[in-house]
Amino acid sequence: MRETKVIRLKTDIQLKNPILLVGLPGVGHVGKLVAEHLIEELNAEKVIEIYSPYFPPQVMVNEDSTIRLVNNEIYTCKANDIDLLILVGDHQSSNTKGHYELCGIYLDIAEEFGVSRIYTLGGFPTGQLTHTDEVIGAVNNLSMIDDLEKYDVDFRESEPGGGIIGVSGLLLGLSKFRDMDAACLMGFTSGYLVDPKSAQSLLRVISKIFKIEIDMGPLEERAKDVEKIAAQILEMEQQKQQFLPDTRTSDDDLRYIG
Amino acid sequence: MRETKVIRLKTDIQLKNPILLVGLPGVGHVGKLVAEHLIEELNAEKVIEIYSPYFPPQVMVNEDSTIRLVNNEIYTCKANDIDLLILVGDHQSSNTKGHYELCGIYLDIAEEFGVSRIYTLGGFPTGQLTHTDEVIGAVNNLSMIDDLEKYDVDFRESEPGGGIIGVSGLLLGLSKFRDMDAACLMGFTSGYLVDPKSAQSLLRVISKIFKIEIDMGPLEERAKDVEKIAAQILEMEQQKQQFLPDTRTSDDDLRYIG
Amino acid sequence: MRETKVIRLKTDIQLKNPILLVGLPGVGHVGKLVAEHLIEELNAEKVIEIYSPYFPPQVMVNEDSTIRLVNNEIYTCKANDIDLLILVGDHQSSNTKGHYELCGIYLDIAEEFGVSRIYTLGGFPTGQLTHTDEVIGAVNNLSMIDDLEKYDVDFRESEPGGGIIGVSGLLLGLSKFRDMDAACLMGFTSGYLVDPKSAQSLLRVISKIFKIEIDMGPLEERAKDVEKIAAQILEMEQQKQQFLPDTRTSDDDLRYIG
Amino acid sequence: MRETKVIRLKTDIQLKNPILLVGLPGVGHVGKLVAEHLIEELNAEKVIEIYSPYFPPQVMVNEDSTIRLVNNEIYTCKANDIDLLILVGDHQSSNTKGHYELCGIYLDIAEEFGVSRIYTLGGFPTGQLTHTDEVIGAVNNLSMIDDLEKYDVDFRESEPGGGIIGVSGLLLGLSKFRDMDAACLMGFTSGYLVDPKSAQSLLRVISKIFKIEIDMGPLEERAKDVEKIAAQILEMEQQKQQFLPDTRTSDDDLRYIG
Repeated sequence: MRETKVIRLKTDIQLKNPILLVGLPGVGHVGKLVAEHLIEELNAEKVIEIYSPYFPPQVMVNEDSTIRLVNNEIYTCKANDIDLLILVGDHQSSNTKGHYELCGIYLDIAEEFGVSRIYTLGGFPTGQLTHTDEVIGAVNNLSMIDDLEKYDVDFRESEPGGGIIGVSGLLLGLSKFRDMDAACLMGFTSGYLVDPKSAQSLLRVISKIFKIEIDMGPLEERAKDVEKIAAQILEMEQQKQQFLPDTRTSDDDLRYIG
Repeated sequence: MRETKVIRLKTDIQLKNPILLVGLPGVGHVGKLVAEHLIEELNAEKVIEIYSPYFPPQVMVNEDSTIRLVNNEIYTCKANDIDLLILVGDHQSSNTKGHYELCGIYLDIAEEFGVSRIYTLGGFPTGQLTHTDEVIGAVNNLSMIDDLEKYDVDFRESEPGGGIIGVSGLLLGLSKFRDMDAACLMGFTSGYLVDPKSAQSLLRVISKIFKIEIDMGPLEERAKDVEKIAAQILEMEQQKQQFLPDTRTSDDDLRYIG
Repeated sequence: MRETKVIRLKTDIQLKNPILLVGLPGVGHVGKLVAEHLIEELNAEKVIEIYSPYFPPQVMVNEDSTIRLVNNEIYTCKANDIDLLILVGDHQSSNTKGHYELCGIYLDIAEEFGVSRIYTLGGFPTGQLTHTDEVIGAVNNLSMIDDLEKYDVDFRESEPGGGIIGVSGLLLGLSKFRDMDAACLMGFTSGYLVDPKSAQSLLRVISKIFKIEIDMGPLEERAKDVEKIAAQILEMEQQKQQFLPDTRTSDDDLRYIG
Repeated sequence: MRETKVIRLKTDIQLKNPILLVGLPGVGHVGKLVAEHLIEELNAEKVIEIYSPYFPPQVMVNEDSTIRLVNNEIYTCKANDIDLLILVGDHQSSNTKGHYELCGIYLDIAEEFGVSRIYTLGGFPTGQLTHTDEVIGAVNNLSMIDDLEKYDVDFRESEPGGGIIGVSGLLLGLSKFRDMDAACLMGFTSGYLVDPKSAQSLLRVISKIFKIEIDMGPLEERAKDVEKIAAQILEMEQQKQQFLPDTRTSDDDLRYIG
């Protein structure tokens, strides 16, 4: 496989101005968790598989010990009469060139289906293990902001300060050349752990946008597990701190140094 | 050499539904050890050499101080009337793109010879220096499992959890597109050392599959050497442990910190 | 976007033997600070945008929460009747090949506008947090040196010793093949921090070359902020030093070792 | 510059079965030191410059503050009626693919001049700061060994154990496909420092091969400087050792741990 391969599982797909949601692995896997949860909750149907030499040379092992080559997949479903396309997957591109190539392919598909708007879903890394329930946004068209603020998306001057890296950002940038509206919605997350709690914050925004009910049950379970791990990490950090000299205290006894 | 170069050393090769065994360097070099041992034991004949700019810029030095450019090689032999092709080599591809390209070339060759089934051989990293005699499998076609379980291949739900990376996995994924059956057989191994003991476990499974006797002598010798090294590492680890503060004990004396 | 994309915002640009100034991110971001300051001070007009798969897959977020894909940009303005082109941007190429490709594109544009001379602007890393007000130069044509020395550019035998890496150097090397004069002007900088003070030194040289007045106000503000950070780092370093054993003193008490 | 560029400075070069010596940067810079010294001593003339996007984006600064783009260069000279081509340069390729491409170009040039034999020059890393005056070899044609042993080149079974990496090795491997004899000659070197002393050992072998006198003066000067640095490093290592706990002594006082 020398070129990216787009396999269509269904050829008679009729969608009306669909909206594309993109949730690939990234900070806290927030986008991926949200997209996978939506696929589950909305009984979305897989319509496209994308394989690429820009993905790692890796297969995943299914429950029944069969394998599947890592890929990206596009699902379709309805959310209150609105047609959705949902892009999920195992990986983003392994290198810079592949990011540009793959995003080009995603946008070709989006154009083909007449996508009217793209939401890329991701995490905003705070470096803090404490949770905040906010969702911030960035857009490639100023006119989208008013609309999104109604659904409790927060917009902050020049945030994220370091920009948005990877598919979530690049799709916003490249879709501008095609006159497609696109917004990136980001849940706050530590950046250290998979974050189902941040995924829930983001899902609440999405449920408002599409006026749908989403059962958070499975994510809540998962969030509890991660919280336990986070609590353990916090405790370990505090213990560690306690054993480290405070270099800001001048009269420190200092029997040891880190 | 700008392109991968396939050099055929023999042109009149007649094989009947051959089975391809693949043992390239990887975790514990288990697959490579097994494939090289089989080539030795079954007096396999080298029929193809593959050179590629995706391999490192490196030559190996032979016993007589002549060199040979690093490559992959394909041998052929018989195992109880079954024709075998065995792919071995010095390296896997240096980068992601090369993995996809080289696996494509291997499968082209497999198709050319009418290969009916592929076994990729590898190691399953446990992170433990203690040995386990198991071999687990993953398949690209559910129907292969029953057969392989008869030969004591173990199948575990979704294991390996991180998938299978490199040629051993990618060949399973890519051969699916060509409707070729392929299984990956993995011996348990620490992941830290070359593991001739794990290679023996895997060879026992292979001797059952092909109903052949395999002399383990040379591998047993090598296993003893590695065991000594493993024992030394374990001892060093234990000594090191003894000098480190136990951060979980709150009343620790703590004269020093790591 | 599989290829670098040059977008012309204006088609009727008439320039007379323009001079190209290049200030891309690099050591101390000195070149970038200088180029951006000149664009501001000289009311330069953006005429070209360059997007490329050799830049990272990243968008920057504007103050109003809209995004823009990372790029390089070319501005035009006049400095005392001399036409200037100023190349600025978010990034240099992500890899070696891209450096050569992008510099080729920059020089194609330079040739198209009849550029008579190129100045690449950068920082010379000293490894010292203390400031020096010097600017050193390197040229791709010996005849440029006399001229530049008049404007207080210092030339030192074989300096920088490690050569000049990235666009600032490569443009000098590649423009030689096109018989274009090019000089690299470097402000001294620690190499650890963004350095508006070094940018001011370099701007003073540029104001002499083009006989223009430049208001340093905004850069002075920024320099003060950075100086505070530098002072803090210095203090921390000194404190740290104080706690480290002096391995050169043989009668050291040495209750601990780093 | 999208492709490697071979610039011929002279078109009327007539050589009789020339021998190609290759000394590019590598372990201890032994090969490069030897090649540069030969160019100096034999008054070799530069005939070819090779520029490539596989080299880093870097210019070197000459004594007079002019720059030159990093490259590889080929010189020609005579050694006792034997025509020599000497390949030297600033860098080897930045990546694997470039190594294969550039070596292909070097061999095209070698074929064009009717090169009868190639000697690649390099260092053999010992990991020890103490000097050994030996030179070992590896060949791509067994028949070369007898000849080279006469000139005090040592051949050791399967050494170097890890093969030969980079241009020095790859040229041996790739020239085999063109039926060109090639040997790699390696001076012993620590692997930590530029090693003019190892270069002298290698030059002594070369002076025997070509029956030429070589003035070692300049290299001896440089060797003394490096020896001083090596002595300092050794001393520092010993001091450091002295302060580290001996984990092999069980009754260690252990007031601190490294």
